[in-house]
Amino acid sequence: VTPARFLAACRRQPVDRPPVWIMRQAGRYLPEYRETRERAGSFLALCRSPELAAEVTLQPIRRFGFDAAIIFSDILLPLAPMGVSFAFPDEGGPRIERALRAPDQWRALHPPADEAGTAFVAEAIARVRAALSPETALIGFCGAPWTLASYLVEGGTSRDHTAVKAALLAQPEAFSRLLATLADAMATYLMQQVKAGAQAVQIFDSWAGSLGPADYARTVVPALRTLLERLEPAGVPRILYLGGSAHLLPHVADLPCEVIGVDWRTSLSGAAAATGKAVQGNFDPAYLLAPTGAVCRSATAMLADAPPLGYVANLGHGILPGTPLESVSAFIAAVRGTA
Amino acid sequence: VTPARFLAACRRQPVDRPPVWIMRQAGRYLPEYRETRERAGSFLALCRSPELAAEVTLQPIRRFGFDAAIIFSDILLPLAPMGVSFAFPDEGGPRIERALRAPDQWRALHPPADEAGTAFVAEAIARVRAALSPETALIGFCGAPWTLASYLVEGGTSRDHTAVKAALLAQPEAFSRLLATLADAMATYLMQQVKAGAQAVQIFDSWAGSLGPADYARTVVPALRTLLERLEPAGVPRILYLGGSAHLLPHVADLPCEVIGVDWRTSLSGAAAATGKAVQGNFDPAYLLAPTGAVCRSATAMLADAPPLGYVANLGHGILPGTPLESVSAFIAAVRGTA
Repeated sequence: VTPARFLAACRRQPVDRPPVWIMRQAGRYLPEYRETRERAGSFLALCRSPELAAEVTLQPIRRFGFDAAIIFSDILLPLAPMGVSFAFPDEGGPRIERALRAPDQWRALHPPADEAGTAFVAEAIARVRAALSPETALIGFCGAPWTLASYLVEGGTSRDHTAVKAALLAQPEAFSRLLATLADAMATYLMQQVKAGAQAVQIFDSWAGSLGPADYARTVVPALRTLLERLEPAGVPRILYLGGSAHLLPHVADLPCEVIGVDWRTSLSGAAAATGKAVQGNFDPAYLLAPTGAVCRSATAMLADAPPLGYVANLGHGILPGTPLESVSAFIAAVRGTA
Repeated sequence: VTPARFLAACRRQPVDRPPVWIMRQAGRYLPEYRETRERAGSFLALCRSPELAAEVTLQPIRRFGFDAAIIFSDILLPLAPMGVSFAFPDEGGPRIERALRAPDQWRALHPPADEAGTAFVAEAIARVRAALSPETALIGFCGAPWTLASYLVEGGTSRDHTAVKAALLAQPEAFSRLLATLADAMATYLMQQVKAGAQAVQIFDSWAGSLGPADYARTVVPALRTLLERLEPAGVPRILYLGGSAHLLPHVADLPCEVIGVDWRTSLSGAAAATGKAVQGNFDPAYLLAPTGAVCRSATAMLADAPPLGYVANLGHGILPGTPLESVSAFIAAVRGTA
């Protein structure tokens, strides 16, 4: 069996060419995803059906032959068994039913007693792993403590993150405990995914870049360390994705993870040099809305900046719903050297 | 006459304490601003009335004694005499009436033949300068070519900047000419402001951070250079504000400006070291929604990271409408050493 190209690159082992996958590759830009999503009735129903979640996870692999699949889900789902209620309206991002503004609400949050509340994710992972060829790796994921806390405290997506930042500033100890609780719960959740068949895990700190370096280092990094250390026994590559994080890289360099995911604002060579880790990224998803010739030129420039060992080609953020399929093909062809 | 503390700091001359002002200090967080805005009838009417614009410019100086006033206006206003129509609805940011998506629309854009279309700004500046004490400096401003082009191409504020990025990628030469046209028009506009009494100018590249370093350096920096060089004869400090720009600083280090404005994601000491210029910033405006004790601690931490020469205390972005007045007082007291 050929070891998966993706796993080798995560471990900084030689590969014939960079592996490639795309964040949110099972998403609205794909007609077959839209069809299945319609059939499911709602986004949450799609996430919670092992059969349909497995199906949409596999769709982009069938169409584009990506080197890795990532289980279809959402970072908020493991919060449900912790007592958090949320909804995914068609517009405007997810809504937390009752924003957790006060420390006594944070204290009431506990990691779930067992794994039953996320069993559907494990089952979807097992289904996908059984259907994938050995060359295609399967990635599990979770939200990072800071990004999850932002949702919980803000009550949804936020532009300025004022409530969660005020919480961090006003109640530093209680807020750190909230992050530690989330780290604990997410470690258990990722271990469940690995047991079910995930061969790598990605932790999404999509809103890392909203904080300055001092607060990130002091408050967020300890929770990330707890989470990453708990994953050590799993023995799978740990990818830490940090959105908008050029200013944070020196502060995550000694975290126990194998791969740092960055966006287009952080150069790949710079991220590799700053952290000594494998790097993943960093094509601007907005650039996929340009003509394919321009996509190809930009992708080639990205590859020229990638380190020779330890590189996973990807976007710097999730693919946008309006992305043309031919742009995705052009991006992949550039990475594969078949453009 | 005491030379303004603010101007000395911009020129990296010794000062008794850091000067302080706040981006969008004439804004909705101030009750007297809301009252005048109400009286004006609309945001645009307020901007276009020299009397009322001067009044709201002076309000925060009266209340807080800031070391600098910045003329009340909006970066879109000088686009009107270039033939661009826009509106400021009460919610959701400004709207350009007809987004400029195509190169022939960009080519149709010309710097105005004379300065009559922005005479109301010059008149407001003259009124403010006459009313201010010599210790308080007066700042003129404009939008940077990239940020203005983003508005023009997107048709308003944008989260992902997909249209303007696709334009940059697909039509690099034509897009560069658009930026050059905007640089030319903004240079004339700033010179008009200096003639009227502005003693420093700030160029707002609020959306600088949406681009990666290579594209910023290749496409945006040349237009900034043109604009800044055109201001040389004015002999006033030039402040270049770059939002979310930790990754861009090496690329602006040799631009002809005296001050770099940064946000909380970029350390003040790091920005000073990377550029060799005076620095302005960088308190997170979201932090002003925390209790005043926390504001004071955070402001003290900011000051500890500021360079000893060439530092202007400010926020890292415009003050948020819901900011309590006592937070502003706490921030100022920390800077003045009277907390």
